[in-house]
Amino acid sequence: MSATTDKYAFGMIGLGVMGRSLLLNMADHGYAVAGHDKDAGKVDSLNKEGGDLQVKGFLDVKEFIKSLTTPRAIMMLVPAGKPVDSVIEELTPLLEKGDILIDGGNSHFTDTNRRVEELEAKGLHFFGMGVSGGEEGARRGPSMMPGGDKDAYAVMQPIFEAIAAKVDGVPCVTYIGPGASGHFVKMVHNGIEYGIMQLLAETYEFMKKGLKMDNAAMGEIFATWNEGRLQSFLLDITKDIFKFKAPGTDHLLLDDIKDEARAKGTGKWTSQSAMDLQAPIPTVDTAVAMRDLSKYKALRTKAAGIYSTDDHQAIEGNKEEILSALEQAFYFTMIISYAQGMQMLSNASAEYKYDLKLDEIAKIWRGGCIIRSKFLENIYGAYGKDKNLEHLLLDGDVAKLVEGTIPGIRKIVSAAVAAGIAMPAYSASLSYFDAFRSERMPSNLTQAQRDYFGAHTYELIGKEGTFHTLWAPTKD
Amino acid sequence: MSATTDKYAFGMIGLGVMGRSLLLNMADHGYAVAGHDKDAGKVDSLNKEGGDLQVKGFLDVKEFIKSLTTPRAIMMLVPAGKPVDSVIEELTPLLEKGDILIDGGNSHFTDTNRRVEELEAKGLHFFGMGVSGGEEGARRGPSMMPGGDKDAYAVMQPIFEAIAAKVDGVPCVTYIGPGASGHFVKMVHNGIEYGIMQLLAETYEFMKKGLKMDNAAMGEIFATWNEGRLQSFLLDITKDIFKFKAPGTDHLLLDDIKDEARAKGTGKWTSQSAMDLQAPIPTVDTAVAMRDLSKYKALRTKAAGIYSTDDHQAIEGNKEEILSALEQAFYFTMIISYAQGMQMLSNASAEYKYDLKLDEIAKIWRGGCIIRSKFLENIYGAYGKDKNLEHLLLDGDVAKLVEGTIPGIRKIVSAAVAAGIAMPAYSASLSYFDAFRSERMPSNLTQAQRDYFGAHTYELIGKEGTFHTLWAPTKD
Repeated sequence: MSATTDKYAFGMIGLGVMGRSLLLNMADHGYAVAGHDKDAGKVDSLNKEGGDLQVKGFLDVKEFIKSLTTPRAIMMLVPAGKPVDSVIEELTPLLEKGDILIDGGNSHFTDTNRRVEELEAKGLHFFGMGVSGGEEGARRGPSMMPGGDKDAYAVMQPIFEAIAAKVDGVPCVTYIGPGASGHFVKMVHNGIEYGIMQLLAETYEFMKKGLKMDNAAMGEIFATWNEGRLQSFLLDITKDIFKFKAPGTDHLLLDDIKDEARAKGTGKWTSQSAMDLQAPIPTVDTAVAMRDLSKYKALRTKAAGIYSTDDHQAIEGNKEEILSALEQAFYFTMIISYAQGMQMLSNASAEYKYDLKLDEIAKIWRGGCIIRSKFLENIYGAYGKDKNLEHLLLDGDVAKLVEGTIPGIRKIVSAAVAAGIAMPAYSASLSYFDAFRSERMPSNLTQAQRDYFGAHTYELIGKEGTFHTLWAPTKD
Repeated sequence: MSATTDKYAFGMIGLGVMGRSLLLNMADHGYAVAGHDKDAGKVDSLNKEGGDLQVKGFLDVKEFIKSLTTPRAIMMLVPAGKPVDSVIEELTPLLEKGDILIDGGNSHFTDTNRRVEELEAKGLHFFGMGVSGGEEGARRGPSMMPGGDKDAYAVMQPIFEAIAAKVDGVPCVTYIGPGASGHFVKMVHNGIEYGIMQLLAETYEFMKKGLKMDNAAMGEIFATWNEGRLQSFLLDITKDIFKFKAPGTDHLLLDDIKDEARAKGTGKWTSQSAMDLQAPIPTVDTAVAMRDLSKYKALRTKAAGIYSTDDHQAIEGNKEEILSALEQAFYFTMIISYAQGMQMLSNASAEYKYDLKLDEIAKIWRGGCIIRSKFLENIYGAYGKDKNLEHLLLDGDVAKLVEGTIPGIRKIVSAAVAAGIAMPAYSASLSYFDAFRSERMPSNLTQAQRDYFGAHTYELIGKEGTFHTLWAPTKD
């Protein structure tokens, strides 16, 4: 540590690996920055890792606060939930009007709403900021989604733009909107991430159980795909995972890992919030359900013993043609995942008055974050052309891409269904699409049933009002 | 009104059609009962409809309370949410220790938890009770799911058993468990209801768009199915709906009804709660998503204009064989819907310490309620044989039924996928099953990815603990 200043431009509370990485990233870009943690070891780590940079770690919170230029900009990176409230409680008496507190963790947006209100009442600005990119992103350039008071954002904007990932020189950070909008957008980002991760798992399942491919062949497919239109961070790391041998062995570490996926809850929150917004995102819902199902290993093992007569048959046909269809199918489902997420953002923007700029959001997701992909350029393009685009699938260019994948997705889902291979998120994406492009859904029957048994009334085509019918004589 | 008593055995607050119907049902069975509403018109209606029965409606709440035998048993049937709290607030000062307040509406179980605690502190018993069967059920015999203090239940038990629907003489009511368990079980009941209603809508869609059948032919299928193993209340009313002509016309009223399904939210609550319990119920989730999607009529119409080249083709093949496969497929999905709901109840029972008796729940769902069906006898049988059955699909008899439907469900979903007909809940049920019977899911890849980008660690087969790997050199 060789700080040459007494005042620091930015403060960080919580010096875990993410907090330290973000601070070092800021220091790399010439900012003098300070950190605080109650764990002396972490403070030491920061001071050591800081080297010649203008970084200083404080064990004492008051000294830390005093060391910052005003209005202070302080980010918290502590576990979501009560720890955030504890830090706020400790910090508030030490701050001055106009100071800015930023929650950089994955807090639930409803908690962020509450905190914004509580701190506004005290003259403080509270920002909920999504940060995506993991440790690597934090250190080298994350994608950031800050939401809160627009004027207050100006204080942090230069620092954030400096440290953000860049795509063609454009920083992957922008002011998202008021209130909890930053955390909301990050939550939906994570929901899309759940969807695409589940789709990659199913792609693996299809090649392994349906096409009986070995790990090397599957890894090659993932690597090849990542050179084309499917290019994405998640595919990129999947390709790496298919190269990584268990230490001291000749087989993949992947094969030794339990097939039980844990979750921290942001995918679940996305699905639950989407239901509150009446924004259908079945691909994400399915990913959440499959993470949960994966945990029932004992039940699944018993079920496999019972329902084995119908076990995974090899899929027949020209393998190259099938793999080409699989590439189409994966592209289709990826598009659907983003489309569902973007519609959810549209709904939230209207419902919560976030005034979200979907083109800007697509822009900052192009780099740094977990769901960055080549296709995000198309999304950016679609919302750039028409900022009021109602649904991604209605964009003409996207529609052309989708049309080209239809034979592939139908072929792959049919083959999986026939062979007994579970591809729930692929299936959900396709059936969502087929329902979405239905001018007439069969939901008139649902309306009639609700009115029949519950007198919930129904609506008629071309008529105003609601109606009730006595559908049948009393039943026994 | 010709009440011959000054004291009434049961009181009802909220004299809408459900409240009046339940009271008249009680009076039919020889009980003297009282009702209260702030709407004089509803009080009058009760007194008129009561005829010679021992039923009395009160406009004055104090007189109403005084008229009841102690400990008082008073049911509220008012809209969920604040109205319930308002009634409780008004009533509490008028009640005595040991009195029982029953919320017979569809309150969210977390609200019921709170109310149980608040009223217990005042020495009052609060019951959350699910009541299913609509107006008709309330009047002639509903299925009822009361949860609360077990000893307090004894006061109401004779009345509830008298008015409940009967199956082979067995009343469709039983003590469910403590706290909010009654409302929880009713919520899951409604979730299953959402699932089956969506499946019926998709069955209609398949016959209409895939097999190009007319209404008469579809109605005949539903009627025929309702004579066999698919027999159920929802199929029964569907059959009726397919007979009902729009007044003064020669076509079905069904065809005039908008394809936009409304919802009161209990299905959504079920999905959201299932996610909290990590109990996967993707068939219900899909039903919720499709109700939501149905509301986007304008978007769907635009999408139909764009994606028309792939529009619903007629499904070829022997129509009788396809319809036989469809019967199998519907049976399969119905079984899956119940199986998901029952697993959710198992999870809730453990998590919330409800100590649910799944055989008893299946027993009381056999009559009176919206999801009553012939198959509930099989569920009752399965949990009767093995009260600790971990999952309905692991029961030997159920497994045999499921095995018999597998060719049908695969054939129908494949045909729908190829023809571009949306059958999301059918697809979700099948892919759930195929994942459930996977001894090895592809979720090891999800674990590896999470560890790669977020250092979330992973677990290894046959080893204790969690592990972290640096999967690849730093990326640019």
